[in-house]
Formats: sequence, C-alpha cells, structure tokens
Amino acid sequence: MTSFTREDRGWMARALQLARKGLYSTMPNPRVGCVLVRDGRIVGEGWHIRAGEGHAEVHALAMAGGKARGATAYVTLEPCSHQGRTPPCAQALIDAGVSHVIAAMRDPNPRVDGGGFQRLEQAGITTASGLLEDEAKALNPGFISRMVKQRPLVRCKLAMSLDGRTAMASGESQWITGPDARSDVQLWRARSCAIVTGVGSILQDDSSLTVRPAELRIDEPGLAAEKQPLRVVLDSSLRIPLTAKILHQPGKTLVVTADPDREKQNALQSEGVEVVELPAPEGRVDLAALMALLGQRECNEVLVETGATLTGSFLQAGLLDELLVYMAPVLMGSAARPLFDLPLGNMSDRIPLTMTDVRQIGQDLRLTAVPGEPRW
Amino acid sequence: MTSFTREDRGWMARALQLARKGLYSTMPNPRVGCVLVRDGRIVGEGWHIRAGEGHAEVHALAMAGGKARGATAYVTLEPCSHQGRTPPCAQALIDAGVSHVIAAMRDPNPRVDGGGFQRLEQAGITTASGLLEDEAKALNPGFISRMVKQRPLVRCKLAMSLDGRTAMASGESQWITGPDARSDVQLWRARSCAIVTGVGSILQDDSSLTVRPAELRIDEPGLAAEKQPLRVVLDSSLRIPLTAKILHQPGKTLVVTADPDREKQNALQSEGVEVVELPAPEGRVDLAALMALLGQRECNEVLVETGATLTGSFLQAGLLDELLVYMAPVLMGSAARPLFDLPLGNMSDRIPLTMTDVRQIGQDLRLTAVPGEPRW
Repeated sequence: MTSFTREDRGWMARALQLARKGLYSTMPNPRVGCVLVRDGRIVGEGWHIRAGEGHAEVHALAMAGGKARGATAYVTLEPCSHQGRTPPCAQALIDAGVSHVIAAMRDPNPRVDGGGFQRLEQAGITTASGLLEDEAKALNPGFISRMVKQRPLVRCKLAMSLDGRTAMASGESQWITGPDARSDVQLWRARSCAIVTGVGSILQDDSSLTVRPAELRIDEPGLAAEKQPLRVVLDSSLRIPLTAKILHQPGKTLVVTADPDREKQNALQSEGVEVVELPAPEGRVDLAALMALLGQRECNEVLVETGATLTGSFLQAGLLDELLVYMAPVLMGSAARPLFDLPLGNMSDRIPLTMTDVRQIGQDLRLTAVPGEPRW
Repeated sequence: MTSFTREDRGWMARALQLARKGLYSTMPNPRVGCVLVRDGRIVGEGWHIRAGEGHAEVHALAMAGGKARGATAYVTLEPCSHQGRTPPCAQALIDAGVSHVIAAMRDPNPRVDGGGFQRLEQAGITTASGLLEDEAKALNPGFISRMVKQRPLVRCKLAMSLDGRTAMASGESQWITGPDARSDVQLWRARSCAIVTGVGSILQDDSSLTVRPAELRIDEPGLAAEKQPLRVVLDSSLRIPLTAKILHQPGKTLVVTADPDREKQNALQSEGVEVVELPAPEGRVDLAALMALLGQRECNEVLVETGATLTGSFLQAGLLDELLVYMAPVLMGSAARPLFDLPLGNMSDRIPLTMTDVRQIGQDLRLTAVPGEPRW
C-alpha cells in the first residue's frame, strides 16, 4: 500500500479537475487530466480534449518543455503503453525524463492494464496508483464498463410526477418537468455516446433527441455539442415514418430492427439512416445484443430516453446501471402511465435501489439511483 | 409599518425557540413563547406547556418578578384578552407594569383578534405586531386553520416506493420505508390532535396508530406522549372488528359511520369506543362534515394515515393542506397500488403542488408539498 501525502492529493485533485473539462468531448476515449510538478510547483498541465488529438500527458509535457525532467506526473489514468490514434504516453513521459508517475487508477483497457506502469518502471521511473481512485472512476463509468463488461454504461432518464407517473393514459407527456430539468437532460445527452429510444416514443412525441448548444448551461457549449451522440431507435417492425424528426438531425441515426423487410430498410437507408437487424426473441429487439453492438462501436455512456415499457425491459434485463428520475411537483393520477412497466406480485419481489444523489433542478427534483441494496 | 431592530429580531427568535418546546404538548392551545427584556437583558422567559396551565407570558412574568416593570415583552402570539382556562395575559402584563409588547402575530382567535392589543394600548402600553410573523404562523398552522376555517389543518402522510406505489396489489405494504422514517412519523403523530384512518387500512394492517414515547427521538418524549391523539376510524358500514388493536389503546378512539345499526354501535361503545353518525352522500362519510366535527372538538392538526382511496378523497374534497410523502429507494412495480386513487384524463387536469421541503430520513426521502402552484 503506497502512502500518499497531502501535497500528492492536492496535485491529483487538480488533475481530476482538468480531466473533467473533457466530460463532453473526449469520447470514445476516457476523460483524463495530467499535472507535472517539480520542486513543489506545477510546470505543466493538460487534459484530453478530443479523440485523435493529444492525450493529457502530451499537453502537459508540451507546456513543461525541459522542466519535465525530474518532475512527478500526476495522471488520473495509467498512461497508455500502446500505439493508438496517438503514440503511447508512457514513452513520452520516459523521453521527457519524468522521475515519478502517480496515477489515480489503472487503465482497465486490456491493451494497457498495467502495461503503462510496467514500461515506465522498466525505464527506471517509480510509479504508484490508487490516489483518489474513486473520484477517477466516477469520471469514466462508461469507459470502464466498456472495457470490463464489453458494453456501455446504461443510464435511464425518466420524468415523472410526484405520484410516479410518466405520461397520461393517452400517452400525453409534454411537459411534465420544467425548463431547468430539460436543460439538465441536455448535459446528460452531451456526455453520452448514444441516446436510445423506442419507436413508440417517437410516434408519440416526434422528438429529435439532439444536443442543443443553446440549452447547455456550461462554459463551453460549442465543444460539448461538436459531436452529436448516435441516436438509436428500437423499432422491431420498422414502424418509424420517414418524416420522423429524429431521422433528419445533425449526426447519425441508427434504427435497430428485427424486420427483414428490404424495401422499408432501403427507404430508411436512402434517408441516410443506418439500419441494423438484431435478434428479437419475443418480438422485441434483444437488448443485450444491442448493448454488445454499442460496445463494439465504442459507446461509453448510453442515455435511454423512452417510455415505461422499454425502460422496464432494460431494468428486467439487468442492463440498467443508473436511474435518473426528474420528479415534478404535480400529481398525474392513478390512470396515468407508470414509471416502469414492471408487474411484481409481493413485497419480497420489490427491487431495491440505492439513491446516490438528490437535488433540486428548478422546481423539480432530480433523483439518481442505482439498482441494488446500499453497499455501506 | 412598524420597523423593528436587529435586537428585536433576536429576542423574538428566542421567543419562537421557546414556543417550539410546546410543539407536542400545548394542544388544543397554540404553541407560544415569551421573553421579557429590560436594559438589553432577558429578565424573564417562558413557554406554554399544557392547556389549562399558565400561558407563556405568565411563566415569563413569574420568572421576572419585579424586574418586569418597564420591560418589553416579546410574544409569539398576541396576548389573550379573554378569560379562558386561565385569566387573560394582557391584564397580567398590565399588572406587572410592562412598557412595550411586541408580538409576532395577531391572535386569529375571534375572541382575541386584536382585543389583546387594544386592552394593552388602553392601559398605556405601546404594542407592535408582525415581527417574524411567517415563522410564528408556521408554528401553529392547525390552530390558525381552526380559528380561520373552523376546521383542522389536514396533513396526509403516505409511504411510497420511488415509482409512486403505496402497497402491492394485494394490499401488502409493510414495510415500505425504513425505521428512521417510521420514527419520524411518530413525531408527526405526537404533534397532531387526531389521527384519521379508514377501516380498510385497519382491516389490512391492524395498526394501533399510537404515539410510542420509546420511538420519539426528541428531548422530552414523555411530555410529547402524555396525551394520545384522538384516533378516528372512517367506517361507513361498521366493518371494524371488536378485536381491532386500535380500539384497545391508551387514549380515545372515535368511529365515524353512516351505519345506523344500533347493535353494532352498542358493541363498539361497550368497548369504550365513541361512535358518531355522519352523513355519507355516496356511501362514504362526508369528509367536510368530519373535519367540521374535529374542528368543534378543538383539533388543530390532523394526520391522515390511510390508503390511496381515502387520501385521494381528501385531496379531491379540497381538504388536504399538506402532503407528507416518505419515498423509499425501491421499485414496487406497475401492478402495485397508486399514491392516490385519482383518475385524471389530460395533462391539463394534473394537480400542481409546491414542494416545501425535501430531506433524507435514513435511507428514505421525505417530501413535503402543499397543493397549488408555487406562490413566489
């Protein structure tokens, strides 16, 4: 067990702060920050901005120049050891003459996974890992999920009334929550690699599911909205109309179906839409297969924005990692649609959750929960 | 508009703090605190403990003795001018030679309602009112409701899952929330003059609806549990079994019915239970009539602890003043019972609420809301 000093924690906290700047733009890469410290002062710092461009270490080394020699590098993730879109960072740190490398966490990427530390150690650089590890993991839940489980992190967003209803019996649901909540949803979209919905929601609301920079209440909305997340519509029997708004937005739309109808598929494709056929055991697209597909396509975080039925299916398939519920101070009554289509018989069947965050968003509340009993 | 000083606010804040000590014991009287200040120092203070015993002013005057002469009295409620269970406080203040009286609010009791100020002014004492008035009103919402609307304040307590369900389809509901939430409910019971439930809840859960001092997490649980709130069971056709636990607890139980069956009524009465017949227009006891009755019986705050149907009726009758919802981090599914039996058709029918408080109680959340749009 390596012991870290108060100074170490301070520098790593700064590296985490830098990494967070990439929250909306590094995908499919993880968010990473780096600080180079020599003689108790920062000589270089950087963060990963976009995939294909320099990693955090490269930016920090460029800033430090010759002062990197003998410095300690604080990085929020183990430096990479493999040639990816850019050369390996471990080598860059070696070449710059860095003396120590302290990482918040090991890189779960099987192509790295300790290989970065090994390469550094072989070059005579001391390494340590595990400083503010929980904080570092919380920055990249989707990347970690993809590396460890070969599927994205699945976050389901729902808007409900205080009495737990997501739409009137007719399907009417606009708007349950207020403008602040809707603006908050924009941020969750912006950090996601894909937005998943069901054709039922599209037929009901004709929503676009895009990131709209004007609604992003952050410092750099332009950067966050540079790349639209992939829009995924689950449409087992290809009911989506060619005029649906979601098909005609910047970025890409993927329709996932079980319907082999070539004509319908071609019509969609001629609108620039990708169509993928997936198995649909009971007439519904297999969600595990879909998530494996999105994992292959390097999706880290996926936001599911749809109705009670499909959200219930994600939960029942064990594919829901995080629940994001916006609760409006309103009653929609007992005839309205439930939060989840989820028929349970007895109290012993109930599904335990752990609430991880509650906060006020305008006049609404936002509850964050994960499935399972609390672990404390 | 009288202007108050920082010192005035400080003394009144102390008087409010004292008044709060009577939260669980002054009923049917209001909670009142009093501070006597002379030459910038407290010479006497007191709070109303129990009905029939001295009012706050009397305790403060007793403590001050001769030092009350020339003092300023800070009282959270206009001093009474009428002979009640005890002599009028306005006269006691006059007799003690107090120079100024500052009240937080006028007494809404029609037997006082400015009469206290008038009596003081006539004796040459200067008076002012409205200092920390909102805080003072918040201490006595039930007393004010009874004086102004001739009915108690009605607070409905519900325990629900995150998906807004109060019981499984079978009626099974024990336990949705954790021990901390259940202990918190004890405090709401202790400050109430009556607990109202429906016979359906009794048949389902056989609950006692008592205040249990061992579960009261406050400084003086003994005082708070001295007097059990009146237990009221709505039982239009007298289905309650004579063995029901609620009938055999310390304190009184009132069964409200529309069933004229003398035999059943006598059987209950011979168990020491009071039975009252009230009109029941559609086979259900008229809730407005019940609340008028409880108002006549000097009930300030009433806690409704029952199922979705009866709670929905209170809401629809416009008799629900405050909603207290304990939300457990659990999903009970779409077959479970709703928060309110409340069939609404369109989004335009939805019932707006204003959330007034949200806090964590153990692993549960407690949401407090009042019907209506926010007033800010």
